Amino acid sequence: MEESSEGRNRGTPLACAACKLLRRRCMQDCLFAPYFPASELHKFTNVHKVFGASNVNKMLQDLPEDQRANTVSSLVYEANARLRDPVNGCVGEITALQRQLADKIAEVERLQVLLEAEKSNRSPSS
Amino acid sequence: MEESSEGRNRGTPLACAACKLLRRRCMQDCLFAPYFPASELHKFTNVHKVFGASNVNKMLQDLPEDQRANTVSSLVYEANARLRDPVNGCVGEITALQRQLADKIAEVERLQVLLEAEKSNRSPSS
Repeated sequence: MEESSEGRNRGTPLACAACKLLRRRCMQDCLFAPYFPASELHKFTNVHKVFGASNVNKMLQDLPEDQRANTVSSLVYEANARLRDPVNGCVGEITALQRQLADKIAEVERLQVLLEAEKSNRSPSS
Repeated sequence: MEESSEGRNRGTPLACAACKLLRRRCMQDCLFAPYFPASELHKFTNVHKVFGASNVNKMLQDLPEDQRANTVSSLVYEANARLRDPVNGCVGEITALQRQLADKIAEVERLQVLLEAEKSNRSPSS
């Protein structure tokens, strides 16, 4: 078998990060190759640790090609969050953001009340 | 072998959701049983679809027992989010919350400016 111009069909050094980690040949039609370049091995390593390569493969296969890059990017984000915080993962960020949002909503309401009070204080003299 | 009082060691109807789905015996020391009761099969099904049983098993094993319930609860949340939105998962919620938070921060700043203006409008007459 001839090596392709990209040198990916014989498990050469240009194999994608997934095929490198899983020690398999990286074929021309490799589902992972467009999203996990060899230079970013940690990206695939983390996603594989959290979701497992076969689950990620299934997820990508079930989606149209133009949605796969965004899917990979959200999977990488989630995997990194889970490795940073094994108990809460991404949900820790959601909880923190919900708390910050609730604080800001309360502050908006407080400021609106103050503003109304200022306006009505001013009106008798104007 | 005798059946236990809980009836879990012979893969009886009281097997946990994980052992039910994976068609294996649910032993007394089953790691999944405390968090995935048989009555909530969908919880384990979703977590298994997204993370894979063996990854979840590894994650729980690596954590002290008192952190496992919270871990399972965040994994279930993440899995449900991923099945609802296969492209963005939980990250879609994070992005939406970040946008709402940025809007509220801008609103707080706008109200603070208005309030200061009201106060300085009032001060010459007071």
